Amino acid sequence: MSRFPADSVGLVTPQRQAFTEPLPLACGKALAQYELVYETYGSLNSAGDNAVLICHALSGHHHAAGYHSIEERKPGWWDACIGPGKAIDTNRFFVVSLNNLGGCHGSTGPSSIDPATGKAYGASFPVMTVEDWVNSQARLADVLGIGQWAAVVGGSLGGMQALQWAISYPERLRHCVAIATAPKLSAQNIAFNEVARQAIITDPDFHNGDYAAFGVIPKRGLMLARMVGHITYLSDDSMGEKFGRELRNDQLNYDFNSVEFQVESYLRYQGQEFSGRFDANTYLLMTKALDYFDPAAAHAGNLAKTFEQLQAQCLIMSFTTDWRFSPARSREIVDALLAARKPVSYLEIEAAQGHDAFLLPIPRYIDAFSSYMNRIEVSP
Amino acid sequence: MSRFPADSVGLVTPQRQAFTEPLPLACGKALAQYELVYETYGSLNSAGDNAVLICHALSGHHHAAGYHSIEERKPGWWDACIGPGKAIDTNRFFVVSLNNLGGCHGSTGPSSIDPATGKAYGASFPVMTVEDWVNSQARLADVLGIGQWAAVVGGSLGGMQALQWAISYPERLRHCVAIATAPKLSAQNIAFNEVARQAIITDPDFHNGDYAAFGVIPKRGLMLARMVGHITYLSDDSMGEKFGRELRNDQLNYDFNSVEFQVESYLRYQGQEFSGRFDANTYLLMTKALDYFDPAAAHAGNLAKTFEQLQAQCLIMSFTTDWRFSPARSREIVDALLAARKPVSYLEIEAAQGHDAFLLPIPRYIDAFSSYMNRIEVSP
Repeated sequence: MSRFPADSVGLVTPQRQAFTEPLPLACGKALAQYELVYETYGSLNSAGDNAVLICHALSGHHHAAGYHSIEERKPGWWDACIGPGKAIDTNRFFVVSLNNLGGCHGSTGPSSIDPATGKAYGASFPVMTVEDWVNSQARLADVLGIGQWAAVVGGSLGGMQALQWAISYPERLRHCVAIATAPKLSAQNIAFNEVARQAIITDPDFHNGDYAAFGVIPKRGLMLARMVGHITYLSDDSMGEKFGRELRNDQLNYDFNSVEFQVESYLRYQGQEFSGRFDANTYLLMTKALDYFDPAAAHAGNLAKTFEQLQAQCLIMSFTTDWRFSPARSREIVDALLAARKPVSYLEIEAAQGHDAFLLPIPRYIDAFSSYMNRIEVSP
Repeated sequence: MSRFPADSVGLVTPQRQAFTEPLPLACGKALAQYELVYETYGSLNSAGDNAVLICHALSGHHHAAGYHSIEERKPGWWDACIGPGKAIDTNRFFVVSLNNLGGCHGSTGPSSIDPATGKAYGASFPVMTVEDWVNSQARLADVLGIGQWAAVVGGSLGGMQALQWAISYPERLRHCVAIATAPKLSAQNIAFNEVARQAIITDPDFHNGDYAAFGVIPKRGLMLARMVGHITYLSDDSMGEKFGRELRNDQLNYDFNSVEFQVESYLRYQGQEFSGRFDANTYLLMTKALDYFDPAAAHAGNLAKTFEQLQAQCLIMSFTTDWRFSPARSREIVDALLAARKPVSYLEIEAAQGHDAFLLPIPRYIDAFSSYMNRIEVSP
């Protein structure tokens, strides 16, 4: 353990929880049985009031902090914010981080075996919504003996889950931290998702989602989906700073087969690497969950009305160069919370890194996040 | 002819011009012989000083105004700006509009027969640059007896050609009108192009560009390329106004096969329609020409220095919600022209339509464009 940084949660071991009571879903179907894989960091206090739930974004998973082995080179995806003395301080909080249903990192999803058929679910795995996820997370909380979260926290699609928790289970969380998110997708957001989906669906290796039966994966489609997604995670400025128009070689080749600019090889690498480790059906499912999220729809588009039942205090944060979910989208949430007369803190953070900023150790962001989390009261 | 609107140039017939002198290209190769297809509107005056060249953008062509037949439902792509009494007034100007080399609308391009082999050029068609196009356009001007253009005009990639004309042939144009363009692509612009190219190249029907020999076309790739391109042509706001989150049917289907939102079916339609009428190799070529455009590179990135040789007066116009080539990109051009002490007019037009605004009859845009063009002196 001495190899890990002092502010790391160190070695962590994923845990599994099986559920046998059917989970009714927004699509009208139900999952008869399912498993969730999760990790925890820190200790649940005797009062049980120091638990924090981490909700992951599109390509995220349960491994949010620490290391799975001493060989692992990179820690969990949100290690910048979770650990002893960090914004989500594991000296104070008991942190729970799970892989959502429909995922491809251990929780039941399209590549799991459907007990009813003995084959992978594939295309038959039901569509998931943010509400469905929150319901499944509530059941995990029940199992873990967590009646009320000190906070539910997430960025991007994870922020939507945090908001949905506050709406669906108002009495089960004291704080809701929603970062770099939106109250619903814009037409442009949906359009980018649709490009990604079409890339996957039209890949001849997709086989209507049952590619596992054919022993192939739709790598081309997944690569393209990731490439287009990746562009939306970075700001124009940060791409410019990172790559500019830097050439891959000393001079231009002027042909169709060469990679001329660094940004091209970076994107191709990102796409190819992703296509080897992520499941195509899960990608479709995650983008659909994003599209469907629209909690105000239940109140004819009135978000303030939707927030009336909230009991949690909210922290909303956005980043200036995020053009996927811009500060204006966070302000929609803040304005609705204010209209509903709910307690809300809002911070717009100057950051060049675009949407990805929420994953990065940006000082002002970390300071504000830490300060807020440190003010959350927990029993000794 | 009475069926056409009064301010239309009416029925037009494309013309062809063959060139037999080899055209040396930036890539080091040369085109031994080639043809250009073009249209003209209005009449060249006896002084030969009223000619205006229209340069087209990525998916454009020679048919910029009027109708090819009385059955044609839609006029040429820039009919909003070209015609009697319009911004480019055909009562005053002799307008020339061509399909660029490498195109797929009649000029020599990848789908043309290579006389050296008797087969379609396909992947062997050379890479074109904006400079190459301008050189080929200068030869067309020679044939048409146009020693000096009253103006060279274009939007987007067309604007780059207008700028390159002013740089390459300073004495051969009096005015340069560059609309919704940039002095070079940003890393993000290149990234979007690379996604489009990868979509085409990884389509199994692409066959390394020689799909014609296989009797197929990479429709899936072209569809995806157009979808992602299309998103960058529209502003987030205009997509929102056009589609919002409007459902295609009355209610959500919650499955992976349904089109849930109007914006999805719109994008799919745009992509599919495009994939049936545009050539994949041409698409690759056009995006490469965009990537390569960087006239300041010849002067170590100093755009003002590049502009020192200019003799043309410039009109630069941009649109507030254009995020493909934002107003900031136009201001880079303006600032460099000012630093080079060149006469320049600049207008940033408030418009919700994003990059596509340059094609649309937006009153303030049309008024300013008309006013500038009307001040260009031509012999009676």
